[in-house]
Amino acid sequence: MADDTGAGRVRVVGTGLIGASLGIALTRAGYDVVLHDPSPTASALARDLGAGRLASADDPEPDLVVVAAPPDVAGPVVAAELDRWPGAVVTDVASVKEAVAAAVAAAGADLTRYVGSHPMAGRERSGAMAARADLFEGRAWVVVPGASSAPAAVDLVRRVAEAVGSVVTVMAAAEHDAAVAVVSHVPQVAASLVAARLRDLSDDAVALAGQGLRDVTRIAASDARLWTQILAGNAAAVRSVLHEVRADLDDLLAALDALTGTDADAAPAPGALQVVARSITDGNTGQARIPGKHGGGPTSYASVVVVVPDRPGALASLLVDIGDAGVNLEDLRIDHGLGLPFGLAEVAVLPTAVEHLHTALAERGWRVHD
Amino acid sequence: MADDTGAGRVRVVGTGLIGASLGIALTRAGYDVVLHDPSPTASALARDLGAGRLASADDPEPDLVVVAAPPDVAGPVVAAELDRWPGAVVTDVASVKEAVAAAVAAAGADLTRYVGSHPMAGRERSGAMAARADLFEGRAWVVVPGASSAPAAVDLVRRVAEAVGSVVTVMAAAEHDAAVAVVSHVPQVAASLVAARLRDLSDDAVALAGQGLRDVTRIAASDARLWTQILAGNAAAVRSVLHEVRADLDDLLAALDALTGTDADAAPAPGALQVVARSITDGNTGQARIPGKHGGGPTSYASVVVVVPDRPGALASLLVDIGDAGVNLEDLRIDHGLGLPFGLAEVAVLPTAVEHLHTALAERGWRVHD
Repeated sequence: MADDTGAGRVRVVGTGLIGASLGIALTRAGYDVVLHDPSPTASALARDLGAGRLASADDPEPDLVVVAAPPDVAGPVVAAELDRWPGAVVTDVASVKEAVAAAVAAAGADLTRYVGSHPMAGRERSGAMAARADLFEGRAWVVVPGASSAPAAVDLVRRVAEAVGSVVTVMAAAEHDAAVAVVSHVPQVAASLVAARLRDLSDDAVALAGQGLRDVTRIAASDARLWTQILAGNAAAVRSVLHEVRADLDDLLAALDALTGTDADAAPAPGALQVVARSITDGNTGQARIPGKHGGGPTSYASVVVVVPDRPGALASLLVDIGDAGVNLEDLRIDHGLGLPFGLAEVAVLPTAVEHLHTALAERGWRVHD
Repeated sequence: MADDTGAGRVRVVGTGLIGASLGIALTRAGYDVVLHDPSPTASALARDLGAGRLASADDPEPDLVVVAAPPDVAGPVVAAELDRWPGAVVTDVASVKEAVAAAVAAAGADLTRYVGSHPMAGRERSGAMAARADLFEGRAWVVVPGASSAPAAVDLVRRVAEAVGSVVTVMAAAEHDAAVAVVSHVPQVAASLVAARLRDLSDDAVALAGQGLRDVTRIAASDARLWTQILAGNAAAVRSVLHEVRADLDDLLAALDALTGTDADAAPAPGALQVVARSITDGNTGQARIPGKHGGGPTSYASVVVVVPDRPGALASLLVDIGDAGVNLEDLRIDHGLGLPFGLAEVAVLPTAVEHLHTALAERGWRVHD
């Protein structure tokens, strides 16, 4: 960057969760950060959290502008910033890329200085009050050059993303939108549709909820306003994937229709059973593609289930004992018993460690389920 | 029961995961358990695991027969056992109840002595080798009387379920099947359909997988053979719920179609955005009905996110420090960073404890995200 004081000048437009967190992280990384938000209160709050200093009329041209505005206004704001700062690179952080790039192009702005971004970080809460310096650390950040983006502009955005601890992937906008439709947007839709069916259940029925339902519907608690913008902004890619899901669902429904009311003595239609089985095996295959720990390939772990009394420190002492046994804890999930004062801790370890761990924990008085 | 030696006589038919685990648990609870399986090897294995003794021609009539056979043969086996033991109560453990009851009735067996069961316990692995004494502890067990079931028969099944540590709910078969369709079967379908879309993704796209996708698709690793039987056995209830899901999906698809290709300057169809928003808010409402810890009402917890280095004992020391801070750990989830040697531990605590915990952990050198 053309500045020898610090790492460079960054102007953050929009000081909600992402913008404020970016400001804090970049300030700590030695960047000179100025903050702007349509709401003076919001920018003042971000400044108070250490995200940078308030923008003023005397500011020199920034090296990079980060537009951290909601997806539906990101495009016009990017275009306005490109026009205002003729030498600056401008990026945005919206989780949809084609719609934003199209809006920038439609505004006639200089596309050589625009590079899209999608930092895939987030939290249930929004707003600057939830901001944190480490929001991006270890998370994916997708850099999305346009056809006209200057290579130097792409490099700049990449370096800033890495400066806040992200792991950078470069993708074209269409490829990005199609990818997030499958790995993020459609899963949100599925969680919401499944959860919606719980609204009118009796309390007795809901009491049968197990870990499977909890896992599938966890993200059904997401913010409606944000997700309406995301789904609307990526409507084309999302509908494309949802059409494929509906086709699979229709096949399954036809098979279940064929199986409904089948005489208990008659053999069920073999084609129908095969369709049902394939729904599950196709899911097995797809799920196995999800990367395992620390970005490596999918890994097979084995589970050891341990009864953990609901006392302060109980879970901690379990993990101490696991560590003392010399076994590395790969993952941990806690399942809550129904109306009983304990939980079940499912500890994932390498399969070769299971037997040893089982013995070690049992010797220390734990009730181990495997 | 009409026996003064021990808690009673139970005959287990089918010594896979459920049957063998039940045998072990009942034996420890003082019951006299005999084991039968079509495979002599399977029953011998269960016997070796402490599930009971092998059935023989000299066995007295049992008080209770538990048919732990796969869902598609449970009905005929229940009928055969009812005929063989004219004084015994017979139950089964299949996760679908109407289909089994219908098969028992169609066989002309004595329905006064049949009471359906559904112990809602299970593990990723199947077979007697995965059996454990505590499989049912703290888990739900649904007792499903038929219209003709004798009250004493219902009581007997209930007592046995409680003897192995289950929390018993009583429901009619139709109510049960409708409930598990919503809380278990349709979530499985959703997870599988979403995961199936991952099969053909590029590695770059799959690398963008986050915790949301992992949560939604975790149960997509389920066993196809078992789930084909479950879905086929509960086809009527499952298709009914899936039809409702498809109707919601169709509404959403129509809205996304309306939003696709909308001119960036034109206002998006307001009705379409409302439909999209409602998909999410309906999911918010449904998800909030899921019971929280230990069977109580849904609870609001706050999250504290802590960076945990990937060293043996690191997570354990975090939990020790949380305990030392006097804060009760309500739930714990671990998110793995991409290609970096640390994970992010999301610790759920009461909202009133967040600030204190943040301070306490930071003082002990932890990098806390909130």
